[in-house]
Amino acid sequence: MTEATPAEHAAMARAIELAARGLGTTSPNPVVGCVILDSSGEVAGEGFHAYAGGPHAEIVALAQAGEKAKGGTAVVTLEPCNHTGRTGPCSQALIRAGIGRVVIAVLDPTDAAKGGAETLRESGVQVVSGVREAEATRGNVMWLSSVRRKRPYVIWKFASTVDGRSAAEDGTSMWITSEASRMDVHALRGTVDAIIVGVGTVIADDSRLTARNLRDGSLAIRQPLRVVVDSVGRTPENAKVRDGAAATWIATAAEVGADAEGRVDLVALMSRMYERGVRSALLEGGPTLAGAFLAAGLVDKIVGYVAPKLLGGGPAALMGAGVKTITEAIELDVTDVDRVGPDLRITAVPKREN
Amino acid sequence: MTEATPAEHAAMARAIELAARGLGTTSPNPVVGCVILDSSGEVAGEGFHAYAGGPHAEIVALAQAGEKAKGGTAVVTLEPCNHTGRTGPCSQALIRAGIGRVVIAVLDPTDAAKGGAETLRESGVQVVSGVREAEATRGNVMWLSSVRRKRPYVIWKFASTVDGRSAAEDGTSMWITSEASRMDVHALRGTVDAIIVGVGTVIADDSRLTARNLRDGSLAIRQPLRVVVDSVGRTPENAKVRDGAAATWIATAAEVGADAEGRVDLVALMSRMYERGVRSALLEGGPTLAGAFLAAGLVDKIVGYVAPKLLGGGPAALMGAGVKTITEAIELDVTDVDRVGPDLRITAVPKREN
Repeated sequence: MTEATPAEHAAMARAIELAARGLGTTSPNPVVGCVILDSSGEVAGEGFHAYAGGPHAEIVALAQAGEKAKGGTAVVTLEPCNHTGRTGPCSQALIRAGIGRVVIAVLDPTDAAKGGAETLRESGVQVVSGVREAEATRGNVMWLSSVRRKRPYVIWKFASTVDGRSAAEDGTSMWITSEASRMDVHALRGTVDAIIVGVGTVIADDSRLTARNLRDGSLAIRQPLRVVVDSVGRTPENAKVRDGAAATWIATAAEVGADAEGRVDLVALMSRMYERGVRSALLEGGPTLAGAFLAAGLVDKIVGYVAPKLLGGGPAALMGAGVKTITEAIELDVTDVDRVGPDLRITAVPKREN
Repeated sequence: MTEATPAEHAAMARAIELAARGLGTTSPNPVVGCVILDSSGEVAGEGFHAYAGGPHAEIVALAQAGEKAKGGTAVVTLEPCNHTGRTGPCSQALIRAGIGRVVIAVLDPTDAAKGGAETLRESGVQVVSGVREAEATRGNVMWLSSVRRKRPYVIWKFASTVDGRSAAEDGTSMWITSEASRMDVHALRGTVDAIIVGVGTVIADDSRLTARNLRDGSLAIRQPLRVVVDSVGRTPENAKVRDGAAATWIATAAEVGADAEGRVDLVALMSRMYERGVRSALLEGGPTLAGAFLAAGLVDKIVGYVAPKLLGGGPAALMGAGVKTITEAIELDVTDVDRVGPDLRITAVPKREN
């Protein structure tokens, strides 16, 4: 049977839900969810991948299923891995447990891990793939985009007024957006591996750039890497990003490589971050760095917090994106518009292929 | 009985619907709808005010009801007028028709027309007011706001990118927003008495500023007055706003009065427009004129068309609104966010009392 059954479709929907629980803690690994159905089609075990170095989703689900896995079906959001990393290959574990059929949403695009489906088939296990593929891809979009292109998936976050200002004429910006939006940003930080800012923003705002609970100030368990794009090394010695609350990388042109203007080469920066295991990053400012990322086609998603205010003066949220005339405008697909407290949150993806 | 019955409430909801059909064509009169219920509570007649100089809503509804009006109830969105303008007073017409009871949503705030309720009561007619008042007020908000303050209700319309630009770095702006948004703007023009632009916009864009059907170019039957704010009289002789397709007023500082900087005094301009019968106006640009209106507290509503594009350079949608620091930001209540084609339409009202 090469088609998934209704029970398998339902199990995949559940596996996708389970996978999402790992968002923000599995990097550099993907999120993965797994449901084991016994030979009569009943759910016998569930699992998801929670953190890099921890057990894979299949292993958790098999352990829960125990003997019931024999002759059963494994429903898994990503092709079971075929390699021995920090844990053994899942393909072998499924074969050993006596799983007769594996239903997969998305095939693994990485050279290191792919091939699990082939190994399973060679051992006589039925394999079906592509089940709820689009849904599972959306759930893993940051990791999939990243490993396919070998650079982090970059989300540009900005906060502005309805008239597109990120600060008032005198430079004040605290706070343009509401507490609800700032809490949302901290939650967003908790889903990525790194936060990127320009040194200008560090000097101007001296933000900590950690993922915190704004109510009590407590730090999230896992903190994204703080990356300061600092071409000539101007980050002050006493800047809060150097406070040790999270790992920090002051990325200079000397270390990363320089572009024609002597600034940090952003494409090289992306490669270096990928090599460090960063699969997703939140670009938080300022406007000129955001413009450089957009001009280089390095932004994959945009999350804008728009406060119900007008300023009529002050710096714009975005500067120097390389657009000279209206026909060159960077076109977006707005995927969501939500109210966050009194603010609007506009989520969009650039239309052009990055 | 001083409370409205359920049937009268339902009739008022219908009267408010009827009133809305007059939006854009009744000025300088309000929109008004009327439903006549016969003595058994059945609908006997309906009417709305369609254009200044035409019959009032009550007269249309009474004509439809004929003899059934006798002993019946008139349900009307605005207090029946008490004066002889281009038509006779509605209060007398209701009395003559033998109406026994009048249910009113909103009392008339104008010195000229008010007093109808009193006249009716003096003739022994039962009068109930304040029924669905908030709803009827919203339906007549432009006229009510205008006559209460003796200046036009001003809607500032802007078009911008997500990053708040109204044109690209080289000044090109056609078209930032989609055809769907531009059609929406033409529909909006059809609901107001005047369009206001700065002479800079006339020189830069040479727009016709008429309300048109964009598919075939045909003009709406009623055209708003085109007002060009032109302090020293720079409107070119061959500008399209002088084409005769609609009335145009080139408002110079010499004619209207000047502010401290020698520019047209906007408060005086508002008074002059009100005197000319303008109850509502659409402020269409440019950014500096919009800033001056906002700084003067003369904007009542904001409709922003935000295109899913980024420019990263070029003029902002709003400049010089008199805000120096973040705590002085003009706070808005966002009342609606809608998709218009690919664009977002953000509708808001300033929080401060204008």
